[in-house]
Amino acid sequence: LIRRLAILGVGLLGGSVAKAARSLGLAQEIVGIGRDLTRLQPALRDGTLDGATTDIADAVRQANFIVLAAPVLVNERLLAEVWAGAAADAVVTDVGSTKSGIVAAAERLAGSRSLAFVGSHPMAGSEQAGYGVARADLFQGASVIVTPTDATDGRALKRVTELWEALGAHVSALDPSTHDRVVAAVSHLPHLVAFALVDAVRAFEPGAMAFAARGFKDTTRIAASEPAVWREIFLSNREALRRSTEAFRAALDRIETLVADGDGDRLETVIASIKAEREAIR
Amino acid sequence: LIRRLAILGVGLLGGSVAKAARSLGLAQEIVGIGRDLTRLQPALRDGTLDGATTDIADAVRQANFIVLAAPVLVNERLLAEVWAGAAADAVVTDVGSTKSGIVAAAERLAGSRSLAFVGSHPMAGSEQAGYGVARADLFQGASVIVTPTDATDGRALKRVTELWEALGAHVSALDPSTHDRVVAAVSHLPHLVAFALVDAVRAFEPGAMAFAARGFKDTTRIAASEPAVWREIFLSNREALRRSTEAFRAALDRIETLVADGDGDRLETVIASIKAEREAIR
Repeated sequence: LIRRLAILGVGLLGGSVAKAARSLGLAQEIVGIGRDLTRLQPALRDGTLDGATTDIADAVRQANFIVLAAPVLVNERLLAEVWAGAAADAVVTDVGSTKSGIVAAAERLAGSRSLAFVGSHPMAGSEQAGYGVARADLFQGASVIVTPTDATDGRALKRVTELWEALGAHVSALDPSTHDRVVAAVSHLPHLVAFALVDAVRAFEPGAMAFAARGFKDTTRIAASEPAVWREIFLSNREALRRSTEAFRAALDRIETLVADGDGDRLETVIASIKAEREAIR
Repeated sequence: LIRRLAILGVGLLGGSVAKAARSLGLAQEIVGIGRDLTRLQPALRDGTLDGATTDIADAVRQANFIVLAAPVLVNERLLAEVWAGAAADAVVTDVGSTKSGIVAAAERLAGSRSLAFVGSHPMAGSEQAGYGVARADLFQGASVIVTPTDATDGRALKRVTELWEALGAHVSALDPSTHDRVVAAVSHLPHLVAFALVDAVRAFEPGAMAFAARGFKDTTRIAASEPAVWREIFLSNREALRRSTEAFRAALDRIETLVADGDGDRLETVIASIKAEREAIR
């Protein structure tokens, strides 16, 4: 049982952690922290939060479990304040989509004061954002990647893993830089590609949007994702994103060359092997 | 009422035209043409077809409505044989995803013998293929683009439009080259991008596929499309596909440059305008 659960940022992910912890009775007290108190009101009114504040130091003082659920670079920026104010027995985790930056920031702060941090990435996002779409069952059956390093406290890793499992998730561990390459590949690159696809169509043939069918809609669903969230994800995972995009351009070149050369047989072979790869993850 | 409806290629699209025409009682007789008689048996057995043959001349001789529903380049190749054998009052259409090639082929053939051809493109495909997934209601609410030119016979255009409307589709008309740019933008480019995305991920970080969530799955659903179908579509719409891919690379460059420059504010503005564009077609 958690004495006080402090959640920094009560949007889709932070709000869903709060709702799930409340409905499962995992914490005695749940406190939300935000820049704007009025935006925390819905979670207070519906009983998800016991308290709401704009004061990080105040919220984390008594907390023994702290979840950073603001946009990734905001989490990194606020970590020092969390670190300075948290109770000695506190475990800190986050829900950000990139991990190298925040894990490095935590390891720098550990030089000044020993505190337990474990990075988490619940792969349960949506193109929708905000507390209004938070759900107690968001993590049921979802995949959560935790990113311990050699410096990580074993008991903290266990407590963070247990929280996610209690929320219904499957937990895997990857080191932070492998994590960042994996999510660059299966999440950040697809978002970049979906954004570019919508942008390209409106530039190339604006009237074409009127003829968009299910293929275009599915391929670009995530192009409606939150700009403020994706700005931070792209910037915080710049290097892995750049390298995954390089791989993508090479794949695009290969298919384009076969089309330009009219090499139908090899084109069909390449598409068949891609189809098989895609079907394996269906 | 159609006297004899001849359908060349009884797969997802051809089979769905046959099933819909049968269930709506639009044709006295429905004949399927294929390379392999055994593959036409299911449609004979379930009563969708009255006859099945491998002989094009035989099937089209009595037909006054002919639908070409083989892969696009096969349709183009077989058009001469259809043209030579069809009844004088026949209307010929196709269901291919590219239109400039087949319309040009029909206009060349019209020099030898006057016959009514109108290109059609029902935008109701699927990544699945074959008669097994054909459905009588496939075209209900779907968009069908017909591609008349100055040389198109008005009555034939009317008959083809009426058939699609009877099948529940919304029909719009575009000239063949505008059509090919439109579908390059909202269908062929997204397929190329989805294929390249799967190919890139397996090259860049093969283990990442295990962490694919809904975003990746939706973005790459169409990467499981039929290789033989997409080989033909890409090759037959090479030029428009090349130009749409050029626009896509430019869009990718623009976002990548903002990320590389760390220009978060402009990045957020660009993503916000893309999000708005995408939401407009939701």
